[in-house]
Amino acid sequence: MSTTPRLDRLEGRATVTRVGEDGLAGALPGADVLLVWDFTSDAVRRCWPGPGPRPGWVHTASAGVDRLLFPELVDSDTVLTNARGVFDGPIAEYVAGLVLAVAKDLPGTWRRQREHRWEHRETRRVAGTRAVVVGSGPIGRRIARTLDALGVRAQVVGRRGRGDDPEVGRIHPADALPDLLPGADWVICAAPLTDATRGMFDAAAFARMRPGSCFVNIGRGGHVVEADLLAALRAGRPASAALDVFAEEPLPADSPLWDAPGLLVSPHMSGDTLGWHDDLADRFQDAFDLWVAGGTPPNTVDKRLGYPSGD
Amino acid sequence: MSTTPRLDRLEGRATVTRVGEDGLAGALPGADVLLVWDFTSDAVRRCWPGPGPRPGWVHTASAGVDRLLFPELVDSDTVLTNARGVFDGPIAEYVAGLVLAVAKDLPGTWRRQREHRWEHRETRRVAGTRAVVVGSGPIGRRIARTLDALGVRAQVVGRRGRGDDPEVGRIHPADALPDLLPGADWVICAAPLTDATRGMFDAAAFARMRPGSCFVNIGRGGHVVEADLLAALRAGRPASAALDVFAEEPLPADSPLWDAPGLLVSPHMSGDTLGWHDDLADRFQDAFDLWVAGGTPPNTVDKRLGYPSGD
Repeated sequence: MSTTPRLDRLEGRATVTRVGEDGLAGALPGADVLLVWDFTSDAVRRCWPGPGPRPGWVHTASAGVDRLLFPELVDSDTVLTNARGVFDGPIAEYVAGLVLAVAKDLPGTWRRQREHRWEHRETRRVAGTRAVVVGSGPIGRRIARTLDALGVRAQVVGRRGRGDDPEVGRIHPADALPDLLPGADWVICAAPLTDATRGMFDAAAFARMRPGSCFVNIGRGGHVVEADLLAALRAGRPASAALDVFAEEPLPADSPLWDAPGLLVSPHMSGDTLGWHDDLADRFQDAFDLWVAGGTPPNTVDKRLGYPSGD
Repeated sequence: MSTTPRLDRLEGRATVTRVGEDGLAGALPGADVLLVWDFTSDAVRRCWPGPGPRPGWVHTASAGVDRLLFPELVDSDTVLTNARGVFDGPIAEYVAGLVLAVAKDLPGTWRRQREHRWEHRETRRVAGTRAVVVGSGPIGRRIARTLDALGVRAQVVGRRGRGDDPEVGRIHPADALPDLLPGADWVICAAPLTDATRGMFDAAAFARMRPGSCFVNIGRGGHVVEADLLAALRAGRPASAALDVFAEEPLPADSPLWDAPGLLVSPHMSGDTLGWHDDLADRFQDAFDLWVAGGTPPNTVDKRLGYPSGD
């Protein structure tokens, strides 16, 4: 992120030191709290003080904490929290927009518009189609609920299955995914990136999807074996895909993904709506109030799982 | 439409004569019923027998009946029915797709994709925005309900206001529209084309819209003064528009609308989802059953209003 957070409410209550990647190593040992604002950086891993003095609390302005799950932080008693809740609604809208755009072939219509080409086609209803949403955290649930409001029957897959989720009813266990894929028109990855989910969308997974289906990833690039997806799209199964996240970001200009058949590329922006910076800063300051008062800040990550427990 | 309708259920019960524009004049005087399958044609107007023998019932495979509202048919006792109900869901999904695509700037993202350009932007939430839907028939209501499910506060404008609509609550009267336009992020035309609505979206209407707003037309081209919209878009108010219908269709290849700033062009396909032909034919055959039994077919158009009364 290019901006710096507005932290007005900390004035007079804390010494706020803003550092870039260069200054981080020097600032970390003396800090009580670290706010990771540029969550695309690997600097925290590189600069972490190890066994020496270090922050007791690290908060990241992102939902995914995968860049912070290095052993020295995981094994320490430092509390790690994330920006759970900021991105749910925006990302769910983004996914709904992608699903509708693909069903109505809006990309194909706008391609024809550039050529002044009037070419009527019949498109698909989304109501009555079926989605599998991988990820039972707040983002995955919100996606499922939003699709449900459009008449899509969405099934949510989490690490563990349960039958009584108050929001989405049933959550299917991860090992049920292979059996769910063949029935889905839309497969949406909204999982945290952990050792258990890395590379889960590979040739075997794509081979189980329907020929006409669409794969959407708003999780992390590491969930997908990109070479496998490229081969799968070239073979027509799935028929299309939309990736907002990539193994390497920014996606290199010479990546074959830019021109892959049926692939929609967006620059990791599904959750970033106008005002998100202020929303992130507000939530950090709310958490700070709790922490200063001796409480535990909300959305504490279970560092062994890689996300706040309870999902 | 290039296909012909499947009318299996009429076999042995009616003599079905399928004619193109050329054969219509000869076939009309002897026909009891006319099914207007190619609803983009003006042939019915040209071939109508006038005071002589003529069909007692005309059904059109479209929601809009504007091409059939010529005086000789309007003043006759011929019953006119439309395909009310076939297009509601598909068009509502299409409009929701356009709204989300504009809010998330999907067209801008895919333009950058062609250039292999990674350029992160912040986009808009749709939840909490406001829409005005002009047209209180089944299509307008369904659009409002679908947008509502996405958190958009949609207001519906009909010919007459009322406060107790079972589906959308309040319907605002047509003369309230000028006061509603400045508050809307999305202005959506889903009205029937009548003398009262022709050209209603003109320079004066666009001048009342917000600078950042978006105009969507899935009604009829005749609702919009296209030269005024072109000028309005060039001036940046509204910021964008999506037209699925045009004064002349197909839109001529040299129309300036193809390249107008912020304008998304689609070829009159918002309601046309896979299977629509069979759906249309089924509904006509259902109506035929009623008509043969001496009843009135459903969705009878009030020919003075230009749509089934009750809207």
